[in-house]
Amino acid sequence: MHPHEKLQDFCKAVFLEIGCSEAHAETAADVLVTADLRGIDSHGVARLSGYVRLWEIERINATPNITIAHETPSTAMVDGDKGLGLVVAPHAMRIAIEKAENVGTGWVAVKNSNHYGIAGYHAMLALEHDMIGLSMTNASPQVAPTFSIERLLGTNPIAVAVPAASELPFVADFATTPVAYGKIENQQRKKEPVPIGWVQDATGNPTTDAFVTHKGGAMMPLGGDKTHGGHKGYCLGAIVDIFSAVLSGANYGPWVPPFPAYLEVTENPVGDGIGHFFGAMRIDAFRPADQFK
Amino acid sequence: MHPHEKLQDFCKAVFLEIGCSEAHAETAADVLVTADLRGIDSHGVARLSGYVRLWEIERINATPNITIAHETPSTAMVDGDKGLGLVVAPHAMRIAIEKAENVGTGWVAVKNSNHYGIAGYHAMLALEHDMIGLSMTNASPQVAPTFSIERLLGTNPIAVAVPAASELPFVADFATTPVAYGKIENQQRKKEPVPIGWVQDATGNPTTDAFVTHKGGAMMPLGGDKTHGGHKGYCLGAIVDIFSAVLSGANYGPWVPPFPAYLEVTENPVGDGIGHFFGAMRIDAFRPADQFK
Repeated sequence: MHPHEKLQDFCKAVFLEIGCSEAHAETAADVLVTADLRGIDSHGVARLSGYVRLWEIERINATPNITIAHETPSTAMVDGDKGLGLVVAPHAMRIAIEKAENVGTGWVAVKNSNHYGIAGYHAMLALEHDMIGLSMTNASPQVAPTFSIERLLGTNPIAVAVPAASELPFVADFATTPVAYGKIENQQRKKEPVPIGWVQDATGNPTTDAFVTHKGGAMMPLGGDKTHGGHKGYCLGAIVDIFSAVLSGANYGPWVPPFPAYLEVTENPVGDGIGHFFGAMRIDAFRPADQFK
Repeated sequence: MHPHEKLQDFCKAVFLEIGCSEAHAETAADVLVTADLRGIDSHGVARLSGYVRLWEIERINATPNITIAHETPSTAMVDGDKGLGLVVAPHAMRIAIEKAENVGTGWVAVKNSNHYGIAGYHAMLALEHDMIGLSMTNASPQVAPTFSIERLLGTNPIAVAVPAASELPFVADFATTPVAYGKIENQQRKKEPVPIGWVQDATGNPTTDAFVTHKGGAMMPLGGDKTHGGHKGYCLGAIVDIFSAVLSGANYGPWVPPFPAYLEVTENPVGDGIGHFFGAMRIDAFRPADQFK
């Protein structure tokens, strides 16, 4: 048994303990351990207790009835029934893959979900079907739009996975901010400054103070300030929010409920849970897959 | 007659003169004048002569037979027959819109095209159909990937247009670089430096020298250096290239033929012309359009 399999069994046991089904516990554990195996420690097993705490305060339903609320041949809107995002997301991605098998592409917007782990896991589910996979999610507000001081957007990540022949697949998986929030936390733990371009203070000015996010400051979007194209990162984050939450009916912008359970939900919700968006495109819906690869 | 209508008539007359059909000349002129009306001077009528020069050296076919080379209910691969991108792109976008009317979404990859003007024009064609529009294109290599000195990607723009009710629609239209190349040219004309984060020198080091792009240097991707998330901008540019050119069979990466006609095509092509990618998603394929707006 590989060491990571032990870890996966442990995670699975925890998810079973909170009431998840065998299949759901298996999937949720796989998402977390895959994050660690891919080197994204910030989104892996380290967050296991965070999911448990969300369940303790009844923000996660361990036995969700995930349903398709509306659909067309190439689209669906899925209601995650407050389930673990780790479970809702692969479920929704499989619907996208099935639709792509039928009509070339499939696109699924999800509401009423929770934090879904690494975006790349879900996008990569498309690879074995010779499809391009796409995955994005909104997240609790950390980022101030360009020229603004209010936190209105999450670090809203995007992942795209593209199959290849003999080479490794192309997998991009990134927050629409210069860095993930975890890297700012690293500097806080070391009591070291952050580079200019990561964060701004409560008045909107650039700063190297890693703790500024606890003092009314905010993260900056990918690009940093306007001079360096930060407004483009802000647009990207907004696009992720629109696709994930406005298309689905989830909470968007400042209304997205926070992930760490110790952060209270202070805003009245404008939608259901957090939102995701998934896509699957069959390569051979455009050109023969062997030529593409 | 508004002044811009005079300008549009002039552009149309030029396109008719090189042999375009009435309808094609009208569309091409509309794309250019719309760019100027939206304040994107760098992509408007100022480039009219550039298209004419491409036609003079026979890189543009004024009477293209634009065809669907392959399709599924939600996808198509379009061959632009060396036509003006200004004409091929709206044609392809309309195919995407038609497919979205039928199955919820439509996605079209295009090869054998040329420079298509502003990305936003084509995305915005979806708005009047209550659809989200998406448009992207690859472009001649100007950008060095993070940790690299070779120019491998274009400024590969992305545009997304989202309909709204009483508010203006959301339209994002941006290069996946900190700035468009035109802003570097502006600094060159003024003989002024550029901010750190826009360009790098021939050895890959950051510089403020606006002329460095003529001395073996390169533009940096959105984000700038690795510390500021430049690898994410590089991924975005690569995604645009894969969707636009690898899905369609156009030239990609360093093989994309240059737009200004005075730049010779030095590389042997690996595909046909330049590539675009378009998408249209019916809002009501996910949820009722009035709720969304």
